[in-house]
Amino acid sequence: MLNFPILRVTDNSGVSTSDTLAIEEPLEIRISYGPQEKRSVKNISVTMRTPGNDEELATGFLFTEGIIRSKSELATVAHCFIACAANKENIIQVELTEEAIPNLPFTDRNFYTTSSCGVCGKGSIEAIRTVSAFTADRDEHFTIHQAILHQLPDKLREHQRVFDATGGLHASALFKPNGELLLVREDVGRHNALDKLIGAALELDWLPLQESVLLLSGRASFELIQKAAMAGIKIIAAVGAPSSLAVQLANEFDITLVGFLRQQRFNIYTAGYRIIMDHYEN
Amino acid sequence: MLNFPILRVTDNSGVSTSDTLAIEEPLEIRISYGPQEKRSVKNISVTMRTPGNDEELATGFLFTEGIIRSKSELATVAHCFIACAANKENIIQVELTEEAIPNLPFTDRNFYTTSSCGVCGKGSIEAIRTVSAFTADRDEHFTIHQAILHQLPDKLREHQRVFDATGGLHASALFKPNGELLLVREDVGRHNALDKLIGAALELDWLPLQESVLLLSGRASFELIQKAAMAGIKIIAAVGAPSSLAVQLANEFDITLVGFLRQQRFNIYTAGYRIIMDHYEN
Repeated sequence: MLNFPILRVTDNSGVSTSDTLAIEEPLEIRISYGPQEKRSVKNISVTMRTPGNDEELATGFLFTEGIIRSKSELATVAHCFIACAANKENIIQVELTEEAIPNLPFTDRNFYTTSSCGVCGKGSIEAIRTVSAFTADRDEHFTIHQAILHQLPDKLREHQRVFDATGGLHASALFKPNGELLLVREDVGRHNALDKLIGAALELDWLPLQESVLLLSGRASFELIQKAAMAGIKIIAAVGAPSSLAVQLANEFDITLVGFLRQQRFNIYTAGYRIIMDHYEN
Repeated sequence: MLNFPILRVTDNSGVSTSDTLAIEEPLEIRISYGPQEKRSVKNISVTMRTPGNDEELATGFLFTEGIIRSKSELATVAHCFIACAANKENIIQVELTEEAIPNLPFTDRNFYTTSSCGVCGKGSIEAIRTVSAFTADRDEHFTIHQAILHQLPDKLREHQRVFDATGGLHASALFKPNGELLLVREDVGRHNALDKLIGAALELDWLPLQESVLLLSGRASFELIQKAAMAGIKIIAAVGAPSSLAVQLANEFDITLVGFLRQQRFNIYTAGYRIIMDHYEN
């Protein structure tokens, strides 16, 4: 976080003070792969992120984009030293094992749109199905109680009150079905917060995340549901609105998608059978 | 917008109803350029966007990324017919004039990070300076009154109440310094909303936008300030928080940046001299 001098203005005053800003800096993600005698290095992505948990962001990104398929493909992950040493912390290099074959045709950030059908939502969804490491089997055993769902935003907010003085960070969090907070990651970019979370879960050998509930602090876009699907997540709750393609993707993958989870209310968009209701009128 | 059947859940009820979703679909932006006898076609970007104003989105994106530098480089803009005709509306092709030379080394969405300094915020800011079509001259003549600023979010909300039944759209809007709403564009992606707005302004021959105030419905990231800077915008007000790099970029370009503009309050981060205050205590 960065303190910056500001003028705080209200209806009837203007006061010089300072404000705490969420840090945003570019991160370049590189991978190194191939046999020892002939390693290749490739720049995979540059993303604007909040520094911190960069290793998780890098491995989470590689996993959710389908470039790697398991933790066993990872050798080391480290910030790399370049000529301009001052910016060392903005480049991270992921060394894959000699045996790992990265799924490089798909390194474009929007790889899922390059399906044979051309550019359409349906093609995007099909492309994810082909690269996902986990099957989209129907899983009726994992459920969460409505009353627990209502509690999740407050629990996340409590955590953010401590860690986000800026009001500028998006959060992704994993909860147990009993409402216990397992893991939170925050970032100026909502896709980065989720990549960090999934990267951390990958490191902890928690994947697939079939028995955790994912809470998103804002809206649910296609990209976020895609990343969650790649990690095998079955229940996603968003504080904000989902988009049309997010709902379609959740539906195709039989993921339970809840939106507008706030003020003791929510909407169930897909796979509602995983939510145990107190009241139900048809 | 899409109607989708949902279960609306509150503390003490669960009712089957339907919800209106913001549409999210991929759009591929292509350009065609070069002499008549030897035209080249290049895929520039795929973005997840809300359909509508696709021409503006395409030309706005090309302009804010520095690939084109003026409207005079544009010949025609149209959705293009491909084999999979059903998805025609998800590909748009921008025909440049024969004379136009697109700035293609910078077609990477994150081009501004490829400066000689490597990947750092400072390098990102320098890179924008080199591709910007407008100078960052200090302009003391253009001002806005504090009381007018306070009114802008309500005016935007009034517009969104009519057009956004989904609660899932980000908005970018241009206002006159007297508070008159000039133009609004909305999208599931905040960068798309701004690209559409700037694309519309480009078409209307309004660039550089030195005498308009830009209102952003959410947070202000580096990417949004970068796009605004490319369009010559001098006053930016965001309903949400700005990031550190957004503030640094605004400062470098002498752009007035206001954040947390809501509930009759705001913070002035940079170039406050363009805001006429009612009260000022130091």
